[in-house]
This record gives sequence, C-alpha cells and structure tokens, in this order.
Amino acid sequence: MRQQGSISFIGQVERIEGSISRIKIKTEFCEGLNKIDSFSHLIIIGWFHLKDSKKDRQTINVIPKRYPGAPEIGVFASRSPSRPNPIAISAVELLGIEGCTVLVKGLDFMEETPIVDIKPYLPRADKIIDVKTPAWTTKGPPS
Amino acid sequence: MRQQGSISFIGQVERIEGSISRIKIKTEFCEGLNKIDSFSHLIIIGWFHLKDSKKDRQTINVIPKRYPGAPEIGVFASRSPSRPNPIAISAVELLGIEGCTVLVKGLDFMEETPIVDIKPYLPRADKIIDVKTPAWTTKGPPS
Repeated sequence: MRQQGSISFIGQVERIEGSISRIKIKTEFCEGLNKIDSFSHLIIIGWFHLKDSKKDRQTINVIPKRYPGAPEIGVFASRSPSRPNPIAISAVELLGIEGCTVLVKGLDFMEETPIVDIKPYLPRADKIIDVKTPAWTTKGPPS
Repeated sequence: MRQQGSISFIGQVERIEGSISRIKIKTEFCEGLNKIDSFSHLIIIGWFHLKDSKKDRQTINVIPKRYPGAPEIGVFASRSPSRPNPIAISAVELLGIEGCTVLVKGLDFMEETPIVDIKPYLPRADKIIDVKTPAWTTKGPPS
C-alpha cells in the first residue's frame, strides 16, 4: 500500500470581498483555465494551511463547533479542517476569469488558502438528490 | 505563497464488485469512521496513482476521451486523471461499515487507489441545483 503523496499548489486565495473570492492561479498553470467559463459552477480543492500541524493531522474525533448540539463524531463524519490530510473542498459559482484570476461566489476558504485543484461541477457526478444527514447538520453554516 | 503539501494516505480501494467498492481504512485512522453511518452519502477523495508521473502532472490541456466530441480544454475545465495534482473526488452512496472497511456504491476509482480523505456529503454545501455545463459533458460517463 502506498503511504505518501506530494502536492504542488497551483495558486492561492488572493482576496475575499463579501461572498466573492479571487483565486490567483500561478502563471505556469494559467492555461489550464482554458474554456472553464463554459461551466457555471466549480469544485475548488484547497489546503487548510492553518491546520497543517502534526497535532491537527492526528485528529480522529471531533465535536463540530459550528453546529450547535453536534455530538462527538469521527473526523471522516465531519468537515472539520483538523483532519489527517488538510484537504478542503468547496462547490462555488464561477463569476468570471480575469487573466490568471478566477472569480467565484460562495467559496468557504480563508484568504491565502493554497489551492490544490479546480474541477468543473458535473451534476451527473456531484449532485445527489435524495440525501440523508443527521439532524445536527441542519443547524450550522452552509458547508 | 506556499509551494508544497504532503499527503499521508488513510487507506485504499481494496476490492470492486460491480458498482460496489470496498475501501479499507488503515487501523490508525479507523476510529475516524465513528458515526459516519448517520450519513447516506459521502465524498471520497482519492489519488490517481497511475497518473502520478512527472509527465501526467505537467498536463495543462486535455481532450476528454470519455466524452465523444469534446473539444480541447484546460485541465481545470476537465475531470481528467492527468492533472497537476492527481486528486480524485467521487460522490457515493454509503452502504455500510464492516470494521475498518467502508462499503460504498458508485465510486469512480480503480482497485488499489490510495484514499486521501472521506467527507460526509452535505446537500447545503455540495448539492447545486441550477448548473450549466457545456453540451459535450452530457454525452459521457456519469463522472
């Protein structure tokens, strides 16, 4: 079984203004944005850089603090940023491309969050209609 | 700007039988599955281990081969496994937990795919209703 993988960040969250985030893509990856504006929504994969410590990455159980009344659960039953691999995902609306900058709405990342990948949101793969979640998840933020 | 991150795989796809996949989680992460069965669906994050070469990771433009008639597009407008960081995502139905093994339906990964993370599927964050995609995406596989 393979043990390790290596990530080279493709950019970072440059600035946030209200619900709008500007993601700056490094020059060498910029051409990878070609025709991305034919999609209305994207999945942005980021890196919880403030939780990339040995202690955070040893987290196995969490009490989701953004959800009042949430029980203690395993980290993989949570969206906690403290987790074995600090991978973040966020489904967003694409507002536009300005050079090597991607403008999106609804990104749940902080400024300076390193970006790992961008993928188009494909309803046939990503949209699930009939989903069951525990009651505590309905009392928190949208992500 | 940060340049690099390190991934420690939490498990791998052990066996696939039809649409059902068995994901084996390493013993040290197994407790992280606690209460995950309160969710009906999960997002599995994997590693395209067969595309983790220097050449594959330098891919910037692709012609999505599983989609007849697809144009050449930037890699971030595609779900191609050849991409700067070989991160895979797949939304699946959770069938059950057997010890440290997660049984899921609809996982779009091959056997022996290393697993990076597991997150619960949260409709408020992950389900987008009104999505626009280019016409070529409707002619391919479900992911």
